[in-house]
Amino acid sequence: MQQRHRELRGRAQALLRLLVIRPATAADRDAIWTALEPVVRAGEVYALPRELTREAGLAYWFSPTHEVYVCEQDRQLLGTYYLRPNQQGAGSHVANCGYLTSSAAEGRGIARAMCTHSLARAREAGYRAMQFNFVVATNARAVALWTAMGFATVGRLPGAFAHPTRGDVDALVMYRTL
Amino acid sequence: MQQRHRELRGRAQALLRLLVIRPATAADRDAIWTALEPVVRAGEVYALPRELTREAGLAYWFSPTHEVYVCEQDRQLLGTYYLRPNQQGAGSHVANCGYLTSSAAEGRGIARAMCTHSLARAREAGYRAMQFNFVVATNARAVALWTAMGFATVGRLPGAFAHPTRGDVDALVMYRTL
Repeated sequence: MQQRHRELRGRAQALLRLLVIRPATAADRDAIWTALEPVVRAGEVYALPRELTREAGLAYWFSPTHEVYVCEQDRQLLGTYYLRPNQQGAGSHVANCGYLTSSAAEGRGIARAMCTHSLARAREAGYRAMQFNFVVATNARAVALWTAMGFATVGRLPGAFAHPTRGDVDALVMYRTL
Repeated sequence: MQQRHRELRGRAQALLRLLVIRPATAADRDAIWTALEPVVRAGEVYALPRELTREAGLAYWFSPTHEVYVCEQDRQLLGTYYLRPNQQGAGSHVANCGYLTSSAAEGRGIARAMCTHSLARAREAGYRAMQFNFVVATNARAVALWTAMGFATVGRLPGAFAHPTRGDVDALVMYRTL
């Protein structure tokens, strides 16, 4: 029994060690761009120019209003996200996030871990809701994950995303209170 | 009959002379801020900080991605609007606009004239749709006008706008193809 306890505690600690989510620093720029570039070039999920340069891409990710985090394991970047007010003034109690999982780390729950972290961080920062403005409807994994994370689809923008292979597809507006 | 024709033509010409909509220049900055400031201070329709400074307000209105127009009569500014891509990359075929009518000119169809102009200008610039991201639901006049101008309410953001007197009210996402 004692043995079993030790075993379980050991496993739990291993899992806890698995992912570290911490504020990004300038030292993360290379790793973030390495993760971001292929997603931007593919042009299937973000409304960013596919020819975006490294400088412009990092300037966007590290915009002055963005609070940027990285998710890593053994100092390897697995993902990154930003948190920001979605609007100014009377709309600033609603947060917005952008998440990015490095392609090598897909399917390991990184986006879910980052979203969980961002919801906690947003609450802590005083936000009262979170909104995603532009979830590409063909990005089924993202739609399913955000739905599982408590987001409701509150809007559908018809044909608002010019998908590189599927033509104009809808984008969704997703929202949840905190 | 001829007399009546002349009379009608005269009236039509007077109406046509009534409003000039032209690209804004730096010389319009004072008049634009004079129109914008009371709307910002009231905080009832725009998600902008109520304490916004002149510099920040004009920097926002004249953002690098904004194409700014003014609507005037006898060189008096009655309104202004900006046109911009609502998203980058695969979302850049959808336009976005912000309109502002000077309080002295309210109820004279200025917003309708600017919206008509913006739809034509957006088509000309190659946009295929127009989206309003954040129409405060209590702004009944705006909602009715955009609906009359062919916009559908495609989303509703629950409590996304902290109205100064009515508490958290919904904001609408409105959309139309061009």
